[in-house]
Amino acid sequence: MFKLLDKYKYENQIKSMSIEELNIFSKEIREFLIEKVSKTGGHLASNLGIVELTISLYNVFDFKKDKIIWDVGHQAYVHKILTGRKDKFDTLRQYKGISGFPKACESQYDMFETGHSSTSISAALGMARARDIKGEKYNVVAVIGDGALTGGMALEALNDVGDRKTNIIIVLNDNQMSIAKNVGGLSTYLSKIRVEPKYNKFKEEFDNALKKIPNIGESMAKSVSKLKNGIKQLVVPGMFFEDIGIKYLGPIDGHNIKELSKVFSKAKHIKGPVLIHTITKKGKGYKFAEKNPDKFHGIGPFNCANGNINKSSNKTYSKAFGSEIIKLAEKNKNIVAITAAMRDGTGLREFSKKYPNRFFDTGIAEQHSVTLAAGMAKVGLKPIFAVYSTFLQRAYDQVLHDVCIQKLPVIFAIDRAGIVGEDGETHQGVFDLSYLSHMPNLTIMTPKCVCELKNMLKWSVEQNFPIALRYPRGGDNINLVPLKDFKVGKWEIIHKEGNIALIAAGKMVQHAELVREKLNSLGIKVSVVNACFVKPIDKSLIKNLVEEDFKIITIEDNVIRGGFGSTVLEYVNSLNKNTKVLNLGFKDEFIPHGSVNTLYNVYELDVDGIIKNIVKII
Amino acid sequence: MFKLLDKYKYENQIKSMSIEELNIFSKEIREFLIEKVSKTGGHLASNLGIVELTISLYNVFDFKKDKIIWDVGHQAYVHKILTGRKDKFDTLRQYKGISGFPKACESQYDMFETGHSSTSISAALGMARARDIKGEKYNVVAVIGDGALTGGMALEALNDVGDRKTNIIIVLNDNQMSIAKNVGGLSTYLSKIRVEPKYNKFKEEFDNALKKIPNIGESMAKSVSKLKNGIKQLVVPGMFFEDIGIKYLGPIDGHNIKELSKVFSKAKHIKGPVLIHTITKKGKGYKFAEKNPDKFHGIGPFNCANGNINKSSNKTYSKAFGSEIIKLAEKNKNIVAITAAMRDGTGLREFSKKYPNRFFDTGIAEQHSVTLAAGMAKVGLKPIFAVYSTFLQRAYDQVLHDVCIQKLPVIFAIDRAGIVGEDGETHQGVFDLSYLSHMPNLTIMTPKCVCELKNMLKWSVEQNFPIALRYPRGGDNINLVPLKDFKVGKWEIIHKEGNIALIAAGKMVQHAELVREKLNSLGIKVSVVNACFVKPIDKSLIKNLVEEDFKIITIEDNVIRGGFGSTVLEYVNSLNKNTKVLNLGFKDEFIPHGSVNTLYNVYELDVDGIIKNIVKII
Repeated sequence: MFKLLDKYKYENQIKSMSIEELNIFSKEIREFLIEKVSKTGGHLASNLGIVELTISLYNVFDFKKDKIIWDVGHQAYVHKILTGRKDKFDTLRQYKGISGFPKACESQYDMFETGHSSTSISAALGMARARDIKGEKYNVVAVIGDGALTGGMALEALNDVGDRKTNIIIVLNDNQMSIAKNVGGLSTYLSKIRVEPKYNKFKEEFDNALKKIPNIGESMAKSVSKLKNGIKQLVVPGMFFEDIGIKYLGPIDGHNIKELSKVFSKAKHIKGPVLIHTITKKGKGYKFAEKNPDKFHGIGPFNCANGNINKSSNKTYSKAFGSEIIKLAEKNKNIVAITAAMRDGTGLREFSKKYPNRFFDTGIAEQHSVTLAAGMAKVGLKPIFAVYSTFLQRAYDQVLHDVCIQKLPVIFAIDRAGIVGEDGETHQGVFDLSYLSHMPNLTIMTPKCVCELKNMLKWSVEQNFPIALRYPRGGDNINLVPLKDFKVGKWEIIHKEGNIALIAAGKMVQHAELVREKLNSLGIKVSVVNACFVKPIDKSLIKNLVEEDFKIITIEDNVIRGGFGSTVLEYVNSLNKNTKVLNLGFKDEFIPHGSVNTLYNVYELDVDGIIKNIVKII
Repeated sequence: MFKLLDKYKYENQIKSMSIEELNIFSKEIREFLIEKVSKTGGHLASNLGIVELTISLYNVFDFKKDKIIWDVGHQAYVHKILTGRKDKFDTLRQYKGISGFPKACESQYDMFETGHSSTSISAALGMARARDIKGEKYNVVAVIGDGALTGGMALEALNDVGDRKTNIIIVLNDNQMSIAKNVGGLSTYLSKIRVEPKYNKFKEEFDNALKKIPNIGESMAKSVSKLKNGIKQLVVPGMFFEDIGIKYLGPIDGHNIKELSKVFSKAKHIKGPVLIHTITKKGKGYKFAEKNPDKFHGIGPFNCANGNINKSSNKTYSKAFGSEIIKLAEKNKNIVAITAAMRDGTGLREFSKKYPNRFFDTGIAEQHSVTLAAGMAKVGLKPIFAVYSTFLQRAYDQVLHDVCIQKLPVIFAIDRAGIVGEDGETHQGVFDLSYLSHMPNLTIMTPKCVCELKNMLKWSVEQNFPIALRYPRGGDNINLVPLKDFKVGKWEIIHKEGNIALIAAGKMVQHAELVREKLNSLGIKVSVVNACFVKPIDKSLIKNLVEEDFKIITIEDNVIRGGFGSTVLEYVNSLNKNTKVLNLGFKDEFIPHGSVNTLYNVYELDVDGIIKNIVKII
């Protein structure tokens, strides 16, 4: 069906194509992507935006020896197509299929695995320095979006890049977006550059002209150098990068293969670090994605012809959070919401429209977000930081050091906890109960259903200490009666019978209820406890169970090591009663991509898997 | 003894003093600080550098309502003197005495607690936004060093500061140092500004002159605006800050109270965010500290008259690490060392001199450091990141996401693990075993003595997977025979007798040995096991102990929750044998400042405390 794509086999083929052919090739890749992703779901808009850029990189570099590092990695689909994985796109993001992110096990061309933002410059600089130490010769290219530049570690890396004259090429893929519209002073700065692209043409001429000004005498040289810089600033964008020691080229049209190839070729021969500023359009070539790039950032299956997405459930945890926070904010003027470039994903879109002055999108800046919230809480606001579990990992220290030590009443609304599914190992939220539960002064709550999340949020804004609310992607499987009021560390006994107690946290309460039903039908009676507080745990309830000779089974969608179950075990052990405890959760490994249900099944956290493990101990 | 300081009582007194008096006052404060810190130890150089700056802030602002946030907080001694804590300086950093960092419980003027770097702009911005939302009126001032600006979260915050026109005053205390000499492109940039202070004088005149250029027509306005910026760049330093939306004032002499007071007064009336660039000298006024500011950064007691520091032991873990890595690097050309502004503290000074091309100081940039190491490891180097336990918290996500997922052979040399003592709750390294032990693919080793650390390091550089070596501040209490070779997850039985096994990690093996001796003298026999691998644990050894009906007591200088002991407990529990397990370690709270021995005693991890707990179960 595709004239060029169907014949495409090796990455070197690109070098033999003419610019015209490459443009046709780009078009074909776009069609291929739209068709494939419409079926599997995935990151569409970012990949449509980077087709020409990727092709141009392959046109100029030889990635058999040169290294390319994709920041975040959700824009590597084109790279995957170019490196022999075209035929596997039907399995994209499915269990055992190809990943939506670079994976070394898939290809030697996937030089560095990612998923989280802003890591590429650090990794690329590491490789470039290693190359120099080992006396090897190859180019190292990092491709990073302007959104990812708001992440602190990318800025730490830029600062370090400027420190030694290491050869490294940074391609800034500037589409004015992170997932949604980009924010911050740096973004404003980049915009300023973008509106004056014509000045770029002067740059070389000016550089040459300036070189001809003689440098005589130290004092004169200083003045001349100052003058040069001043004049450059007049006509040259990107002075910030030059100021910190990075050669700046751009801005250039990121959809013009000829121009891109020319600049990349030039960059190869420049000594020291270079940043190439390319301007691209997220969603390019698919009108629905161009119009709504954030909608088409990470999506499920959709209709190619009209861009309609299978409507998702209205009763997700994210949506419930989003609607409840608006209600609460109406009554309590101190409530503010913070997000780190995840406004829509966390359900805060409506809040941001209704309360623009009480809504703060910090960019991809989890660390800053947490301490910003801490500052707000210190002087009387009630900040709620809505964040995905996997991304809160970035702010581990800030939660501990800035919030918990001072016991500041920040609320962490931790979305996408547990299995997130198709995004795979870099995105699974299976560590938060482990990394949060050893933080002194922190209260951790896990709602068993969507409505309980709303009630917990309502309760939380009335407390005066740090609280983490931790809830999963998606919505409920079954209907449960939500708790309306809470007492710190007080659990709910949903059913009490038999001599086995299933103590489950969050969504796993639903699994426990289904397990109970099924066991009941087999004549086995079990109790179900809703561990709505993962920290502190309900010691008196546990003590009662222990004294009544219950076997205890904990269930969590978190790694077992250091998580909820291990907290319960630590306490039961301290009671000296030889109580049998079984901890169910994820074992000590990274959980790959696949659908949520598949992964529950594989890791024995679905109903049958849980029953299988219970049966072992009875 | 001090003419002014002895009479000083209230912070408002400063406002009634003349500039001359304030200069005398500064001198007295310096003498006071040198004398006091020479006895207690503490952060001297940073405080000597900030005397006039602190006084000038109190001269201009009213911190009964205005808020001041100190970055890192180790430079807040002068602030403490000015706010009623002068008479407590004899207790500085001692158990139950005043802290070396801001603490809300000490004073209402300590608005935000810190210890780690780069948090102040985030916290201050949070307070400033809260103020505006609540419709209150006060100034918010963040004081941050140039070193702290290399930390990613400070840069995330700067980016966000520029996003809205919130009134906030950032005082950049530029002493060209973090703990040691500052690094990176941003530092180079600040140097460039520093060398041209004269241009600052032009700034106001130019600004005024430029305002007079008429803005007629949009296209013309654009050109004029461009021209203005260009001209400003010619004469105005700090364009980077202006570019991202922050008004820049400076650079100014940070030891000139008159000038500082003038600029601070001006800043109060500027709309939107302002950055005041002050140039100070670390160690100012004490010749030994001026000459060796890093030596006098954080120090123990010293001789005022000659600046001599009581010589510390040569046999510390840090020094052993420092000498061993040099030896290994001679043989293995792939070994490189990375530090995040902690070269001397981690023992890397000699390495940095001997192998400047294989040594990388990234600034206060733990996140970037880890991923830089990951990039290096990916292409064949053997990077060793030497870092304090408490600061590695900043890179939790990078260890997990960039190193562990890819199983890259990065070595983490984690110094200052366990109790660090006088620096207190923000610095204790008591969480690492909890936050690292749930990371899949990571191997964690804890040497029982200084020599064993050397052997572990030697062994680690020959492995091909990520390894964390975790060791304490200081040196050994007793002599032990170090292990020379290691097998992943294989522990050492040092003594096997009785029916109680003390399984200890790292330094706690020494405590366990002393406990054993003492119990022996009481006729009680116990076994001692060196858990040299905290991950993976030695399951077969544990299984044997369980089968031989041993009681198991784990000992770690980490919080119990989720740490080493809980890993052992999880496994013992899975064996279904009703084995008695007792986990000793720190309870679920932040550990305050005090000497290491005092804290071991208070938290019952000294010999007597451990015995007390053992006796309870026998």
